[in-house]
Amino acid sequence: MNPDVAFPVWSGERAQRVAGVLEAALPAPAEPPLALHEAMRYAVLGGGKRVRALLTYAGGELAGADPAHVDVAAAAVELIHAYSLLHDDLPCMDNDVLRRGKPTCHVAFGEAVALLAGDALQSAAFEILANAGAGDSRRQLALLAHAAGSRGMAGGQAIDLAVVGTTLRLPELEQMHQLKTGALIRASVRLGAGCGRTLAAGENEALDRYAAAIGLAFQVVDDVLDVEGTAQTLGKTAGKDAAQQKPTYVSLLGLAAARQRIETLRADAHAALADFGASARRLIEIADWIALRKN
Amino acid sequence: MNPDVAFPVWSGERAQRVAGVLEAALPAPAEPPLALHEAMRYAVLGGGKRVRALLTYAGGELAGADPAHVDVAAAAVELIHAYSLLHDDLPCMDNDVLRRGKPTCHVAFGEAVALLAGDALQSAAFEILANAGAGDSRRQLALLAHAAGSRGMAGGQAIDLAVVGTTLRLPELEQMHQLKTGALIRASVRLGAGCGRTLAAGENEALDRYAAAIGLAFQVVDDVLDVEGTAQTLGKTAGKDAAQQKPTYVSLLGLAAARQRIETLRADAHAALADFGASARRLIEIADWIALRKN
Repeated sequence: MNPDVAFPVWSGERAQRVAGVLEAALPAPAEPPLALHEAMRYAVLGGGKRVRALLTYAGGELAGADPAHVDVAAAAVELIHAYSLLHDDLPCMDNDVLRRGKPTCHVAFGEAVALLAGDALQSAAFEILANAGAGDSRRQLALLAHAAGSRGMAGGQAIDLAVVGTTLRLPELEQMHQLKTGALIRASVRLGAGCGRTLAAGENEALDRYAAAIGLAFQVVDDVLDVEGTAQTLGKTAGKDAAQQKPTYVSLLGLAAARQRIETLRADAHAALADFGASARRLIEIADWIALRKN
Repeated sequence: MNPDVAFPVWSGERAQRVAGVLEAALPAPAEPPLALHEAMRYAVLGGGKRVRALLTYAGGELAGADPAHVDVAAAAVELIHAYSLLHDDLPCMDNDVLRRGKPTCHVAFGEAVALLAGDALQSAAFEILANAGAGDSRRQLALLAHAAGSRGMAGGQAIDLAVVGTTLRLPELEQMHQLKTGALIRASVRLGAGCGRTLAAGENEALDRYAAAIGLAFQVVDDVLDVEGTAQTLGKTAGKDAAQQKPTYVSLLGLAAARQRIETLRADAHAALADFGASARRLIEIADWIALRKN
């Protein structure tokens, strides 16, 4: 792959690459139990932006890792992400019927199969990572499991549930998002970097600052798009935060200040990676892409 | 610990031991998000027979492992088991309200928190195993993840869902149980053994034969108890298989043949371990205990 290709080409190549890894890692659609395996594939292979996989590949590039050594880590974070969306859409959670322009998994396969498919996708993430053995796999596994668990993503979702209908201040909202989406985004970058040369403690801290900034930026953009967007451009239900009375950046800051916050976070992301030079190119491009995305 | 103690003493000591490991591994009840962490602890620390942990310790003893080196593996299989019960009890699955004599987790904490608690318990199992690094941890993690996933426990639960109200023959019923409960039971024994000396391929196969026999025996006993027992002795709803029109060993074989099948499986378990001599003592005792249990 040409290292000088423009970002849309690079990201398209990497998204295709991880889709191939996921396709091969998931049980075949003809393998029983059929409904479960179909549901798993439906939830994972239905497209999506693959932001987390791109971050993993970009983190790998920063640490000089060959993409082939990053493939499984990139696929593992996408499996965790897909399972979390699947469970998040369930009737007892967000009760959403549309995801990536298609019926959500429980609408297509029923609640019980969707629940199990999410459970099995989480197992699959750890299984492929353990079997791959790239980098210090024990450390990589611990990192991913921590990011997924009650002190990471699942914890953030629990806070999200608890705050519906309450008045939340900005620091609390940010803490929730740092867990709900930030933890897995940070893990994605770190897992990718963990596939290459050993980074110094200060370098890992810089990566974490970068990840914290783009993780929040991603969420602020989501909140802005939820207000501005339509189901057609988003591929999911628009305006649902307001309908569910969820506190958002827009509801707390107003639209203009939320947009300004995105710019500040983008600048923070750039600043965090200043010492890495050209090796940080793709991470920088992802930060810009996240901040400027329209869906 | 005295190696010559009787089985009830040994199993009581080990059950207490793993409870302590679980207590320390789980986030404190005062750590936010409170509801999530309370629900996780509620689902895990509420007692239970700890059959899988006992199998892990017994597998460790067979391979000469110090119990201290088996602790985390034993706790990890219990976390996976607890998460599976929690999700299995949810309204979209078995919709059960009673577990170990207490309200099920979703009755006590609400569906959404229960769902997330199960998710986070699965993550926690892999996190503690990755952090412990006993034995060949990469192989241990792959083994546990495979047992939990769509080709193991989650796959068995999906088959279980699909066969409600259908007529199932015995081989299909056994295949379902080999995944639904058998896979994690097999992994429990193997994970424990993986903490000790390296076993020969034939020795691992013998352990798998043992595990397959006691896994099925456990299930046949469950089916018999579901017919014979009461909620008071079982600590969970009795008679629910018949109410849900689930195929069981009793519905397929009749009560007398099901009881006979338990004895045959117990003999199979003994035979599988014949070459191990005294090192298999606790595994043999567990087989007997499973076959003869009344709740």
